Amino acid sequence: MITELICVGTELLLGNIVNTNAAYLAQQCANLGLSCYYQSVVGDNENRLCQVIKRALERSDIVILSGGLGPTKDDLTKECVAKVMGLELIKDEHSAKRIKAYFQARGMEITDNNWKQAYAPQGALIVDNHNGTAPGLIIKQEEKSVLLLPGPPMELYPMFEQQMIPYLRSLQPGIIYSKTVKLCGIGESKAETMILDLIEGQTNPTIAPYAKTGEVHFRVTAKAESQQEAEEKMEPLLKTLFERFGDKIYTLKEEEALEHKIVQLLEERNLHLGLAESCTGGLLAGRITNVAGASKVFTTGLVTYTNEAKEQLLGVKKETLETYGAVSANTAQEMVQGVMDKYGTEAAVAITGIAGPGGGSEEKPVGLVYIGCQVKGIRKVKEYHFSGNREKIRQNTVTAALILLRRCILES
Amino acid sequence: MITELICVGTELLLGNIVNTNAAYLAQQCANLGLSCYYQSVVGDNENRLCQVIKRALERSDIVILSGGLGPTKDDLTKECVAKVMGLELIKDEHSAKRIKAYFQARGMEITDNNWKQAYAPQGALIVDNHNGTAPGLIIKQEEKSVLLLPGPPMELYPMFEQQMIPYLRSLQPGIIYSKTVKLCGIGESKAETMILDLIEGQTNPTIAPYAKTGEVHFRVTAKAESQQEAEEKMEPLLKTLFERFGDKIYTLKEEEALEHKIVQLLEERNLHLGLAESCTGGLLAGRITNVAGASKVFTTGLVTYTNEAKEQLLGVKKETLETYGAVSANTAQEMVQGVMDKYGTEAAVAITGIAGPGGGSEEKPVGLVYIGCQVKGIRKVKEYHFSGNREKIRQNTVTAALILLRRCILES
Repeated sequence: MITELICVGTELLLGNIVNTNAAYLAQQCANLGLSCYYQSVVGDNENRLCQVIKRALERSDIVILSGGLGPTKDDLTKECVAKVMGLELIKDEHSAKRIKAYFQARGMEITDNNWKQAYAPQGALIVDNHNGTAPGLIIKQEEKSVLLLPGPPMELYPMFEQQMIPYLRSLQPGIIYSKTVKLCGIGESKAETMILDLIEGQTNPTIAPYAKTGEVHFRVTAKAESQQEAEEKMEPLLKTLFERFGDKIYTLKEEEALEHKIVQLLEERNLHLGLAESCTGGLLAGRITNVAGASKVFTTGLVTYTNEAKEQLLGVKKETLETYGAVSANTAQEMVQGVMDKYGTEAAVAITGIAGPGGGSEEKPVGLVYIGCQVKGIRKVKEYHFSGNREKIRQNTVTAALILLRRCILES
Repeated sequence: MITELICVGTELLLGNIVNTNAAYLAQQCANLGLSCYYQSVVGDNENRLCQVIKRALERSDIVILSGGLGPTKDDLTKECVAKVMGLELIKDEHSAKRIKAYFQARGMEITDNNWKQAYAPQGALIVDNHNGTAPGLIIKQEEKSVLLLPGPPMELYPMFEQQMIPYLRSLQPGIIYSKTVKLCGIGESKAETMILDLIEGQTNPTIAPYAKTGEVHFRVTAKAESQQEAEEKMEPLLKTLFERFGDKIYTLKEEEALEHKIVQLLEERNLHLGLAESCTGGLLAGRITNVAGASKVFTTGLVTYTNEAKEQLLGVKKETLETYGAVSANTAQEMVQGVMDKYGTEAAVAITGIAGPGGGSEEKPVGLVYIGCQVKGIRKVKEYHFSGNREKIRQNTVTAALILLRRCILES
């Protein structure tokens, strides 16, 4: 069934808050197998809000609204829904009692505008709010369903999960189940070309590519009666992807990032990691230590930003720095060697490059980066040319280093 | 002028990612004095995307779209805009050249679908993308303006700030000019109570507080004919803020982050900085090296994640680690001392703490952090108790360290 989300609130239109409710509700709808085609954000303005609701009722079967159920004059969601659907607002004694109890329990006096929250469109199903005063509402008119939820996530999440999901399930059987196939070491367009036939032939399951910094993710989605049936539907497609991309696929887990996988690999193989960073200045260490428990494998990280530090901490030779420069394959290699010799790790990554905006030259432009990596006997030193601003170059470098490290671990 | 945001992407409709682009663009529009009445999210579906664009052009003067400019079949934004506005797509040689150069620089092969990104609606103003292959577009038709931006924030933000803002400014007579007064070392509510009278009395200029991680920003906004007139209007208010907050104000420059200011201070005073990080695992060094030219002042960064590393690299005493533990004021202090002694810097920061989720205990809970800082003769070792998840604790720690370092520099 076609579902639409409408989030009401001026603070969203002003960008004062990020619309996490929309992401949450969208995810919940996807899990329920509802096809969410539209999301809208509109402010507390009667005319515009009514227009958006009217439009949504024309094009969608289920309209889920969040926000604008409060006691103030600004809160118009309920009033606008009633107006558009031609329903009268009637005082609901049950809600009135709950509101009274809520305030008494907190020793707060009830102001007149609080009673506004006890009114509901005639025929609406009232959904108790266990975390606030604004009740939720479910209104069914012919084939259309309209769900009203309070804006604060603390009130919206539990109400949706406890009371709205059962209602939505009753409207439609079946689920939508997705898996994310994460690849690294391949470009988006190259990856897409390799699955064009699958994209064109797709019905159920479907497959869609997404580009992340230095990675490509395929989202595989199946509709089915149960998760198990969905997984069975996906099986052949996943098998094909593994045949085509092999170990470029590093995980099928949405929550698993490249650094998690690498820490896992290091732990499995009982390898300890040392890092020496120049232009990334600690960002690679920062990525690795995003992983809880990274301390088991990550022993030493060095940010050797100056030549002196490269000599003192890594034993890079003065001659090397003078002859080839700090940004060179030779320096990268000596940095790696230095980490392993001085700090006794079985795996090491060294990065040296020019992140810019300054420091570039004709033969060594901004974006030139050398990454050296060694895992036991396997050593690779690669040259990269990144573009973009300082941040982009640094981020791309970190991802490239993770990819190179993974490659070396797999080959070691 | 009435402005509308349309964010295109199935991953938004599925709730896989939170729509931070919408919040960012909404905030930018507010700063420009544009009235943003609607936000929409729609997927990569030609029919629905066209409908949403058509609707937006009917009710808004400016339509800003993000996402769907990629090379794949899924990317339809440009095509739909052209269709709705009745414009033909024409190959833009300049863009084609840039795309070719982009791939050659990376030694990557160009697949056919990459050329799709070189096509633009006739008469469109092409906006170069310095951080990716998808150019931005500005299309003006009668009184309507349509702006197309790439979806990835790292491409969208710089393009919007550098190329779209000047265009949007040119559409409106008079200007809205904002300055951001950035404070550190003071809580939001404290800061807000100190300017309540200013908030209540405000007309033009206006003032609004925003909380950032460990910082408070006041956005001062004036409407005027020219930037100079706006700055004159702001002058008295800014003076008042300096009288009330003194050196808690670290900058008035939007683009200047705390780390920029600190690198500046270090350079002015000819101080060299060394860092020793445990629980932040390189993130502080990463923040410092966000600053171009940080190498002038930042000599050595150490990620001493294990006790061994603390002993080997910093000379922290075994007894100290055994008696007080790695997460203790004593260890933090010896780490600072170690940095200055071993690496001869005049300024040093050391961090040790428990980022969680594991590793906490009754007397040393997750979120307990010690930061030691010394600048010449001035030494401070402070205990912090942060809450939230691992990432939040690490980010808060990094900001707290920057604030403590700034304090020590100012007092040294």
